[in-house]
Amino acid sequence: MVNGIERPLDLLNNSKGKEVLVALKGDKQFVGTLVAFDIHINLVLDHTKEMQNGELKRTVGLSFLRGDTIIFISPASTNLK
Amino acid sequence: MVNGIERPLDLLNNSKGKEVLVALKGDKQFVGTLVAFDIHINLVLDHTKEMQNGELKRTVGLSFLRGDTIIFISPASTNLK
Amino acid sequence: MVNGIERPLDLLNNSKGKEVLVALKGDKQFVGTLVAFDIHINLVLDHTKEMQNGELKRTVGLSFLRGDTIIFISPASTNLK
Amino acid sequence: MVNGIERPLDLLNNSKGKEVLVALKGDKQFVGTLVAFDIHINLVLDHTKEMQNGELKRTVGLSFLRGDTIIFISPASTNLK
Amino acid sequence: MVNGIERPLDLLNNSKGKEVLVALKGDKQFVGTLVAFDIHINLVLDHTKEMQNGELKRTVGLSFLRGDTIIFISPASTNLK
Amino acid sequence: MVNGIERPLDLLNNSKGKEVLVALKGDKQFVGTLVAFDIHINLVLDHTKEMQNGELKRTVGLSFLRGDTIIFISPASTNLK
Amino acid sequence: MVNGIERPLDLLNNSKGKEVLVALKGDKQFVGTLVAFDIHINLVLDHTKEMQNGELKRTVGLSFLRGDTIIFISPASTNLK
Repeated sequence: MVNGIERPLDLLNNSKGKEVLVALKGDKQFVGTLVAFDIHINLVLDHTKEMQNGELKRTVGLSFLRGDTIIFISPASTNLK
Repeated sequence: MVNGIERPLDLLNNSKGKEVLVALKGDKQFVGTLVAFDIHINLVLDHTKEMQNGELKRTVGLSFLRGDTIIFISPASTNLK
Repeated sequence: MVNGIERPLDLLNNSKGKEVLVALKGDKQFVGTLVAFDIHINLVLDHTKEMQNGELKRTVGLSFLRGDTIIFISPASTNLK
Repeated sequence: MVNGIERPLDLLNNSKGKEVLVALKGDKQFVGTLVAFDIHINLVLDHTKEMQNGELKRTVGLSFLRGDTIIFISPASTNLK
Repeated sequence: MVNGIERPLDLLNNSKGKEVLVALKGDKQFVGTLVAFDIHINLVLDHTKEMQNGELKRTVGLSFLRGDTIIFISPASTNLK
Repeated sequence: MVNGIERPLDLLNNSKGKEVLVALKGDKQFVGTLVAFDIHINLVLDHTKEMQNGELKRTVGLSFLRGDTIIFISPASTNLK
Repeated sequence: MVNGIERPLDLLNNSKGKEVLVALKGDKQFVGTLVAFDIHINLVLDHTKEMQNGELKRTVGLSFLRGDTIIFISPASTNLK
């Protein structure tokens, strides 16, 4: 166990209220504040920005992302230790 | 918990009767009033408009969208706080 | 609840006996009378016409469509309110 | 209920012993006599012919088709009413 | 019921010890003696030959084929009646 | 039953400790000693070599291969009888 | 049983706290310290680096990788025996 992360979902739980980067299949990327998630890795983000090649493509505000299309989720700018 | 959104499906519940933007795999986009959803994220939209590159492609009225092909759902023009 | 549509499958139930437009993955489209459906969104259509770019490609009469490949289903020319 | 077809599988049941057209993902098509099916829509066809662009590609006799790759199944030349 | 084939898996059961042609997604084809199968349509073939455009690509002897990638299975040169 | 292979997983069980060839979707191939497998066909290989067009691409030592991407598994150079 | 690896997940368990290479569908690769995993092969990596053609593409720190997109996982530079 490292910093309270025993199972993968613990990282998502620790990231609630923080900004996360979400990469989807097909090279889509979203940045937003993690509001909620479930065991299917469905997410709700707030202040969601869709990024393309590092540039802002559009702002979609609140969004529901289906877990099925997600490749990875990373809290912005973080290392555990 | 932010504004009553504890689980991802709470956002969909809050969006009933409101206009939502739905992005599907393969770059399809629909805009319509969210009428109903289920745990598979199957949706019923009313006044559905299929969009392509920001332009109206066609109007399909009432529609059933299979959850399996959905990437994200966003209530039009919204931020939680 | 809008016009008796509380869950997505209610729209399919209301559409039995009516003409529906069905869009499949890979840009296939079928128009036909909805005869039956199940929870996997498998459909039976009658008087099925396969369309391509808005033109009739072929007539296949009665058909069984597997739910797995369906993107959306829309009763022809309809809005709830 | 139209002509005894209440659920999608009823159409397959009615089509046993008859010639059906089966379209698979990736534009493959088979024509053959429907011998058996199960709830996964796995099929056994007899006198199976693989078609391509409306022409006979090869004859494969008895065949087992996995339901997972099937898009639609249609009894040859039929309308319910 | 035709020749003892009531369900699709009956054809696989009847084909044990016989040569079968197996077509996979992505235009791969294998020919070999069917040794075993399970409900996921996982197969074991013996004397397996990988074919490409009707020509022998390589011999892989005993092989385990995952059902998930299989499109159709056909006993070599057969019709039921 | 041929040489103790009654179900497909029996072949994997017989191949433990032996070199196997594993073909994945997308034309990837691995060769290595089969250490472990489970019912999802997840594998652990030792001395794993990634091959491309019959040539060594890289050596990855111990590896975990997800069953979901596997097309076939074959013990090196074998026929049952 | 080789070195305590009886089932595939044992390799992941043995790799906790060690650097692993993770290959995803679509030729994405990540290198990082394995912090946690679950039965869906969802992973948490720390000090995650996204690699492309053997070169560092970007550093994403802590990351959650969905098991669904993973092809293989390999502890860096290892052979069992």
